[in-house]
Amino acid sequence: MRGGDPLVTRYLSLVSLDKVLELMRQEFPPARFSTEVPLEESVGRITASPVFAGYSVPEAHLAAMDGIAVRSEDSFGAGEQNPVVLHDYARVNTGNVIPEGYDAVIMIEDIRFDGDAAVIRKAASAWQHVRPAGEDIAESEMILPSGHRIRPSDTGALSAYGIIEVAVRTVTVGIIPTGSELVPSGTRPLPGQVVESNTIMAAAWLGALGASCHRYPVTPDVPGEIRAAVERAVRENDMVIVSAGSSAGTRDYTARIIADLGEVLVHGAGIKPGKPVIIGKISGKPIIGMPGYPLSALTVIREIMVPLLGQYGLEAPERQVLPAALTATLSSEVGTCEFVLLSVGKIRDRWVAVPLSRGSGVQMSGVRANAFLRIPDNLEGYEAGENILAELLVPQSLAESALLVSGSHDPSLDYLAELVRKDGIALHSSHTGSMGGLLALRRMSCHAAPLHLLDEGGDYNLPFLEKYLPGQKVTLVCIAEREQGIVSRDGLSLAELPGHRFVNRQKGSGTRILLDHELRKLGIGPSLIPGYERELTTHISVALAVKTGDADAGMCVYSAAKALGLPFVPVGKERYELAIRTEDREDTRIQGLVSAISSPLFRDILSGLGGYDTRETGVFRTVP
Amino acid sequence: MRGGDPLVTRYLSLVSLDKVLELMRQEFPPARFSTEVPLEESVGRITASPVFAGYSVPEAHLAAMDGIAVRSEDSFGAGEQNPVVLHDYARVNTGNVIPEGYDAVIMIEDIRFDGDAAVIRKAASAWQHVRPAGEDIAESEMILPSGHRIRPSDTGALSAYGIIEVAVRTVTVGIIPTGSELVPSGTRPLPGQVVESNTIMAAAWLGALGASCHRYPVTPDVPGEIRAAVERAVRENDMVIVSAGSSAGTRDYTARIIADLGEVLVHGAGIKPGKPVIIGKISGKPIIGMPGYPLSALTVIREIMVPLLGQYGLEAPERQVLPAALTATLSSEVGTCEFVLLSVGKIRDRWVAVPLSRGSGVQMSGVRANAFLRIPDNLEGYEAGENILAELLVPQSLAESALLVSGSHDPSLDYLAELVRKDGIALHSSHTGSMGGLLALRRMSCHAAPLHLLDEGGDYNLPFLEKYLPGQKVTLVCIAEREQGIVSRDGLSLAELPGHRFVNRQKGSGTRILLDHELRKLGIGPSLIPGYERELTTHISVALAVKTGDADAGMCVYSAAKALGLPFVPVGKERYELAIRTEDREDTRIQGLVSAISSPLFRDILSGLGGYDTRETGVFRTVP
Repeated sequence: MRGGDPLVTRYLSLVSLDKVLELMRQEFPPARFSTEVPLEESVGRITASPVFAGYSVPEAHLAAMDGIAVRSEDSFGAGEQNPVVLHDYARVNTGNVIPEGYDAVIMIEDIRFDGDAAVIRKAASAWQHVRPAGEDIAESEMILPSGHRIRPSDTGALSAYGIIEVAVRTVTVGIIPTGSELVPSGTRPLPGQVVESNTIMAAAWLGALGASCHRYPVTPDVPGEIRAAVERAVRENDMVIVSAGSSAGTRDYTARIIADLGEVLVHGAGIKPGKPVIIGKISGKPIIGMPGYPLSALTVIREIMVPLLGQYGLEAPERQVLPAALTATLSSEVGTCEFVLLSVGKIRDRWVAVPLSRGSGVQMSGVRANAFLRIPDNLEGYEAGENILAELLVPQSLAESALLVSGSHDPSLDYLAELVRKDGIALHSSHTGSMGGLLALRRMSCHAAPLHLLDEGGDYNLPFLEKYLPGQKVTLVCIAEREQGIVSRDGLSLAELPGHRFVNRQKGSGTRILLDHELRKLGIGPSLIPGYERELTTHISVALAVKTGDADAGMCVYSAAKALGLPFVPVGKERYELAIRTEDREDTRIQGLVSAISSPLFRDILSGLGGYDTRETGVFRTVP
Repeated sequence: MRGGDPLVTRYLSLVSLDKVLELMRQEFPPARFSTEVPLEESVGRITASPVFAGYSVPEAHLAAMDGIAVRSEDSFGAGEQNPVVLHDYARVNTGNVIPEGYDAVIMIEDIRFDGDAAVIRKAASAWQHVRPAGEDIAESEMILPSGHRIRPSDTGALSAYGIIEVAVRTVTVGIIPTGSELVPSGTRPLPGQVVESNTIMAAAWLGALGASCHRYPVTPDVPGEIRAAVERAVRENDMVIVSAGSSAGTRDYTARIIADLGEVLVHGAGIKPGKPVIIGKISGKPIIGMPGYPLSALTVIREIMVPLLGQYGLEAPERQVLPAALTATLSSEVGTCEFVLLSVGKIRDRWVAVPLSRGSGVQMSGVRANAFLRIPDNLEGYEAGENILAELLVPQSLAESALLVSGSHDPSLDYLAELVRKDGIALHSSHTGSMGGLLALRRMSCHAAPLHLLDEGGDYNLPFLEKYLPGQKVTLVCIAEREQGIVSRDGLSLAELPGHRFVNRQKGSGTRILLDHELRKLGIGPSLIPGYERELTTHISVALAVKTGDADAGMCVYSAAKALGLPFVPVGKERYELAIRTEDREDTRIQGLVSAISSPLFRDILSGLGGYDTRETGVFRTVP
């Protein structure tokens, strides 16, 4: 379709990330831009030039004690047995100027006053208890060199030395959102519309590094309008970002416009997410075409724009890196440097890294992640269990507080996350289904696994632990007995499913097992239920599929149906329990989670959500 | 004088820092205050409550590829040898809503169009290349728990999920500067006046943690006015700081006013600097009396106010700590927890910590420091060479870039600091005089020592290295030959010094040695020069003493006299050289410094400063 287009050719021959960074260094030589900011707003900014003291501090000799200023020579000879009586002195408090002619201060404690006379029994040495002029800083001395990141403590000194504005480094960045499907932040998008959020992220990110970002209004997919916006932004800024809407397709004009106005250096980089990135130059200034998918935009900001700002002296804080065992195999294309978001946590003495969804539209992965993995472009990926280097997106102390939960999803987990957060614990939950959680617990790749696995004998969870973790000590903590049922728009029951469009949960999920169990009891075969093979991974996404009319019915917990205001017909109660290794019960994170489960507040939350029987909440069972 | 005052009694029995922190935890139970901020300004703030998605993203099923939306069942049977012709389909681009009735997308690359018909050779599975509704997040799901520090990457997601304002934690802090000697920031203080800078520092520091600070106008030392200001601030804020002027003495009313309006919990803590701190409670709210000396204020902010904000959920980032060898003995009073500012740097594989001036009025120590040392209240201090724990005030990478310079001061060092900063090197200079530098180099407690030590034989520096570092390989790099001379207000020469008030440099400084050498030549004994025994440690402070009229003459380099516009009568030229250990010449920091010295730019700077002969600049000499 687009084979004849030279821009597309470029796009097809991807430029490696290393090459992109090298190109940017060649094309955009270090330059420095600065702006004056009031001292009060200077914290975190980087000085653009040296800062000099406008005057000395102090400018005169000051008393360093409360007492009297004297001429030291008048005191000579004073001693315990030889009091000296002074008539020529001046009363001073700490900070007062020493009146001319005096060169020492005698502390109030060492004086006995006799009328106007001061009696002392100890000679004063010259300049004792005097803060000499210029002691702190002398006029014309350099307070700070350029390139210094201003700390809160520096502001006091700068202010004391007469500074009220500071020249700090900046880069002005013009950000143009393009895309007819975009609606501004704060507007509820209609189906097919997307909130214009990537430029908010870019402005927040680059702004935090010291860039002065200006977001232009949304420009629709009209070449002339985009061109005019780019021309204006190039005039008004040191750097320009053109943010594409998430729908690319036939409406991707950015590269052509950059080629017209200047030069396209890169169209398509060996980076994933973020492949469609464009790097151009107009009037010597960098123009970045930022892809529309949120995680693509995020990756391009972090891996391309942040280093580019570094070339202009706005350096990002260094990122901490730690070795961790990967919990799942990740394959990656050779020739592409891939970035995978991670939840990392420390299980006993070992860091583990759980890869999050790689869907570039799943922006929540960016919120959930506390780290990421870089798969270099010469590798085909990593095997599960391999040791990788995780780059942290949070301070290490916060990563140390991560509690990795893997297993069956339930809305109550969000509330447990909220409760344990008060103890400084960061709960990271992966929706892997009950069997997934069981296996993660076996591989020691999670701290805790929420399960609701129904055994043929009718018991929940325990038989599975005995089977899959034989001989290992495991404790089950009951979160609640919860109602599963059929969610529909018309109040369908389980028996009424045949002939209605159904949406299922994934294999291995407790909900799926319960469904199959109950269908067998009713003698209904899966083939009678259209959509039985379509799998979603959370309760709420099942309820949503029903709400949007995409399916007629699904099975989920009551709270999910209630959250979306849909009818719910109970099928049965199941025991939703948290499995932990018994010897980890001493771990403070697990203690925090267990005590949150047992708290009255959590029971109240469950009651509010509805569909939970809390009589068993907090009850322990152990194997063996 | 003040013995009868119960407040003073409290002050005299100091409360230990641990006890202060414990008291604050008891008296001010955890509370949470919040404020709504626009999403764009939320980076770095901490969520005050969980944030929920207002709608699902996406709300409808979307095409994940450019192509056609089809009913998957229509495609069944298609294969390489068995093309299927579709008439019922809809053209979609990535991001478009899948029209009702369709359940799969076929990529444009896999279609051959034949008029209006689409010919395919591969069956589409249900839901292929479809981004299901709610894939990213479902309505009512929790996006963030409370207590989450918002990262730039989070803002994109929050915006996409409909959030435009975020409730974040805060504490409103009213800050009242008091003191009749205070002048507002930006005003040049007259002698005895002080710029009101501590409240700027407090507001910057607490503000960076998320507090909402309000600085009230300066209140003079009038009890009624201070009282009214405190009453108002308590009404309007969650917490109040009363900042005392630096002159305490007879005008310290804060404690009495707090006692009247509420309760004084602590007046005087076992913390240095910062001893006079007051902690009180009015209407259940904390009131902190912040001492006026800048480094006292800094210490009270860091050690008392920052933990207090932590009780309200505004936690400070954890500070990195590293073991380092102390370069000088520090004695400290038992019963007082003392904080000493440090310059730390890595010399070969060993971290060393150089203590900075402990004068609480020397605010520049706070600017120069990259770390500090806590001497616990049960210790009498530390010996030189002892391993201590340095708490970093900068990221560790910046501390790694520290280049420790110890020795004779010269204004050109500030400019070298500026030049090496461009290579990411942070030059930390201690003014210890030439002999001090030589000894620091011998003890391996600095990287480089600037010297100008005149031997009796008339050569500079080399003979001293042979004597003090015998058999050790040292390289000298000439910074410049610089003119030393007499600075005065009246153009005095060396021979005219007798009878005029002189100000000297400290023993061991090169300037002092040169002066003595030249005085001997002229046959002038020190006793003929009043003030010979008065010692200052920098050239500029000598010139300043002359400028303020405090002395008639001193000896310094030309640039210092020029900076203050004073006459200068040359005495002689001296070789100002940098001594480094020859084997450290490979160190990138030292390489950076050496190449800065050799740069044409540095020569230009020296010419601009005046008084330097640059013909020898950059020349190497080595021993042995």
